[in-house]
Amino acid sequence: MINQIGKAAKTAAFELLLATTLQKNRALSTIADGLLQYRDIILAANQIDIQFAQQNGLSDAIIDRLRLTDERLKAIANDVRKVITLKDPIGEIIDGSILESGLKIQRKRVPIGVIGVIYEARPNVTIDIATLCLKTGNSAILRGGKETINTNKVMIEIIQQALLQADLPIKAIQSINDPNRQYITQLLKLDQYVDMIIPRGGAALHQLCREQSTIPVITGGIGICHIFMDDTADLDKALPIIINAKTQRPSTCNTLETLLIHQNIAKEFLPRLHQVMTEKGVKLHVDKEAFSILQSAGFTAIELVTDEQLRQEWLSNDLNIVIVDSLMAAVKHIREYGSGHSESILTRSLANAEQFVAKVDAAAVYVNASTRFTDGAQFGLGAEVAVSTQKLHARGPMGLEALTTYKWIGYGDDLIRE
Amino acid sequence: MINQIGKAAKTAAFELLLATTLQKNRALSTIADGLLQYRDIILAANQIDIQFAQQNGLSDAIIDRLRLTDERLKAIANDVRKVITLKDPIGEIIDGSILESGLKIQRKRVPIGVIGVIYEARPNVTIDIATLCLKTGNSAILRGGKETINTNKVMIEIIQQALLQADLPIKAIQSINDPNRQYITQLLKLDQYVDMIIPRGGAALHQLCREQSTIPVITGGIGICHIFMDDTADLDKALPIIINAKTQRPSTCNTLETLLIHQNIAKEFLPRLHQVMTEKGVKLHVDKEAFSILQSAGFTAIELVTDEQLRQEWLSNDLNIVIVDSLMAAVKHIREYGSGHSESILTRSLANAEQFVAKVDAAAVYVNASTRFTDGAQFGLGAEVAVSTQKLHARGPMGLEALTTYKWIGYGDDLIRE
Repeated sequence: MINQIGKAAKTAAFELLLATTLQKNRALSTIADGLLQYRDIILAANQIDIQFAQQNGLSDAIIDRLRLTDERLKAIANDVRKVITLKDPIGEIIDGSILESGLKIQRKRVPIGVIGVIYEARPNVTIDIATLCLKTGNSAILRGGKETINTNKVMIEIIQQALLQADLPIKAIQSINDPNRQYITQLLKLDQYVDMIIPRGGAALHQLCREQSTIPVITGGIGICHIFMDDTADLDKALPIIINAKTQRPSTCNTLETLLIHQNIAKEFLPRLHQVMTEKGVKLHVDKEAFSILQSAGFTAIELVTDEQLRQEWLSNDLNIVIVDSLMAAVKHIREYGSGHSESILTRSLANAEQFVAKVDAAAVYVNASTRFTDGAQFGLGAEVAVSTQKLHARGPMGLEALTTYKWIGYGDDLIRE
Repeated sequence: MINQIGKAAKTAAFELLLATTLQKNRALSTIADGLLQYRDIILAANQIDIQFAQQNGLSDAIIDRLRLTDERLKAIANDVRKVITLKDPIGEIIDGSILESGLKIQRKRVPIGVIGVIYEARPNVTIDIATLCLKTGNSAILRGGKETINTNKVMIEIIQQALLQADLPIKAIQSINDPNRQYITQLLKLDQYVDMIIPRGGAALHQLCREQSTIPVITGGIGICHIFMDDTADLDKALPIIINAKTQRPSTCNTLETLLIHQNIAKEFLPRLHQVMTEKGVKLHVDKEAFSILQSAGFTAIELVTDEQLRQEWLSNDLNIVIVDSLMAAVKHIREYGSGHSESILTRSLANAEQFVAKVDAAAVYVNASTRFTDGAQFGLGAEVAVSTQKLHARGPMGLEALTTYKWIGYGDDLIRE
């Protein structure tokens, strides 16, 4: 089965090489219309998924993520319309020249081919990925979570209907609807047909893909993000940034997990931080030095952080605190514990800012800004396929360009190599 | 052992983040000098490798590839000096803007980190890869073939000495000298420290890397390249291109392996081709249609091509011939049998040229030119790490830029996300 899906996706990808922007946008527009036109069918299918989820005792948080409403459907349709307005990157001449030999050469941006996406509960991801792949002329094989299988089936039908109407190959977007996990493993070995795998899920899924896949995998989405306050940081200005980074949306990967504080300001800052964070409902997990400072200041309900806690994403109202004695100690902590996602320094020192930026190796490095900015929309990419924390092909928020590759084209006048 | 090498490489990579172009070029210059200064030691070590190879009955071709001479050493040293003249891509601001939020953002080109390279006999690859990694501020872990182990040891010493003199970390370039193949498998799993694997070798090595590696792998170097002559092709002009593509250096990956001929010109062209190719010592392997044309024309010593032969690299004076009835049939043949390396059309038709370029999905696609142009030096990249036939990160000849990634840097004025 998976082999047939792969073969059909590849065939469709070849046809998509000739698709015009107009055709692709027409299909996108039909998808946006379809989401509203067929809202009753979508919501009914979604209701079945929710009932299954409730019967299987899934958490309210997960059920909320898979639930569609009128409002959410409208938002998804609007996101599709937004993709229509984005510039089509396909066909762009990246660079070109006439070589010494006389060969006229250019690098032209082309679709990657077939993209496999493995993701979890949220049904909006189905539309999201399908539209971004379609806009860039790629075929996609989608493997959503079994929790949204009924919703996904309807959405894929709407997408394929739109492809048909735009005279595009309907197999350009396919989904694997069988919940059996063996199909994930099979998909990861389908290197004959699939050019790139994007896992969207937790650390376990990423590890599975890295270990099993014979296809290039874009890993990412795991954010063990730090803010370092050096000894020149403005304490008043620091607080809102820390609050924003930790509490605006704690479940996202660009959320602050560990605050590194220079020892020279720790005594003054920690009690203030503790008070504000307690008000915000954030629990602190502190290292020994911070513990004794807070204890001396009369705080009692404090918890020591473990090494394990420093290596994980909280994704909740919990914040680790570590005291460091220098910028280099902060950099070393980040190198040891960070996931290469987003790191920030709060400082008034130009030298420290530049050193931090140069020495910290992460997808996004900030000076006096919240880590929450690491996001395709915030970065002006218009959309986001994933956030990569690996270094090949794409790093950080991946927009449309990350779904393309290039082809060298050489025009000769009956030219041979000397 | 391998873990220590990985850890040291990563630590060195962090130090290299701060290396200046001057420092890196100084190290390169010392390496070039060292290759000539220590020529006696290098050639003596190389002599030991050659003796082992002869004792082990390796072929003359392999022994020739691993043999160093005065002249070859000079050529290698010159290649190093050429890398000095190339522009250092590190630090380039790829793009940047002020976002709606006020965040001043830029994408800066940075080193990838640690690069693992697995290669075979040729000792010049050791210097080649080491200098390109060094120029781009990357650490490298080199695993050369066991045939050149003594030569490589001396070369690595020269490199590390040069690093020391330039005040750069000597562990930036390390090699795995133990010939045990288990170290290759271990290297492929070292994702904690290594960011990219480049295999330089045959199809089996690439497959091993794809299957075993938990680190992104750049596959490539396998070239099942085609030239398609459509029915408008100029037969006189076609011959020199085909001769160049097949015979200039048959052992390279950009060599022509299969010629696709439109049926309308086959009867006229095949006898001429047969005669010229026989003169050049090239043996033809032809499909049934070509067979009967040649037979009717009185040729006797003709061989039928097998499906298996169409799926392999000859890398020798052998050429497959397939007759097709249309451009689309040629495209389909290339999609089925090609390795995504280099494909060329010989035509006088603008429409056919554009269709071929659009429909053929390969790293390099040519119009009226030899496939032999697919090469870092020919493409003006100054150097070549490998030729990628996969689509992520880099495609086709990989120069210095392919050894870099980027980092998003955001400067805020105490900025939080709304």
